[in-house]
Amino acid sequence: MPDKHVIKSEWKGDMTFEADVNGHKVMMDANIEGGGHDLGSSPKKLMLVALSGCTGMDVVSILKKMRIDIEKCQIEVQGDVADEHPKRYTKMHVIYKFTGKNLPMDKLQKAVNMSEETYCGVEAFYKMAIKVTSEIQIFES
Amino acid sequence: MPDKHVIKSEWKGDMTFEADVNGHKVMMDANIEGGGHDLGSSPKKLMLVALSGCTGMDVVSILKKMRIDIEKCQIEVQGDVADEHPKRYTKMHVIYKFTGKNLPMDKLQKAVNMSEETYCGVEAFYKMAIKVTSEIQIFES
Repeated sequence: MPDKHVIKSEWKGDMTFEADVNGHKVMMDANIEGGGHDLGSSPKKLMLVALSGCTGMDVVSILKKMRIDIEKCQIEVQGDVADEHPKRYTKMHVIYKFTGKNLPMDKLQKAVNMSEETYCGVEAFYKMAIKVTSEIQIFES
Repeated sequence: MPDKHVIKSEWKGDMTFEADVNGHKVMMDANIEGGGHDLGSSPKKLMLVALSGCTGMDVVSILKKMRIDIEKCQIEVQGDVADEHPKRYTKMHVIYKFTGKNLPMDKLQKAVNMSEETYCGVEAFYKMAIKVTSEIQIFES
């Protein structure tokens, strides 16, 4: 039997849903124009959040094993949205922003590649549907 | 130019990331076995959350237009996970649980179909990669 993940979301009225992920609550709502109250994230944007966290955790743990000392890491994910229904993402771009002292681009790139090509289950899934590109930016601390 | 969505996630040490989605914070973390502190949702499970909220908002708003009065709505999403890296979802199943008085299955099914086939951008995306199935359960109030 494969490993099975299960989450549940409860409707809270109007467009508000509250998900329970192993005890962690995630609020979702539409914005005012969409008939909601903007009480939480848009559901679709959580697809971008999932990618940021999945590849982010890979990269920081790989860099730790490589003994590369980063001070900050920010992952930005951009998604282009289709004009017509169903309004799905058609393309994504990930920007890895690392801050530290004399960070070696080749090692950062290797860590990112390992996540993109081998470990990140979210990225592997998304790449079955669309193109996902990335870039690395280094900031000196 | 297509509509572009952007989210950012900040590394908070160890495996913890905090995403910002238009001002809404979403915490992500690995569990203890995974080297984390279980301070937030697993990133991958947010893919299931995204699906629950996207189709959930569609369905409650379509039922409102149909003047079908539901008291509760819970969306459960199950995902089978691959055994080997990259550990991506290989199959998903959505259970729509509606509570109300004499709810008409045919109208509920129509609302779900409209979301699955026309409106839900998350489901349209996921179906490009894997099979997504669903069922409806009715609870009398």
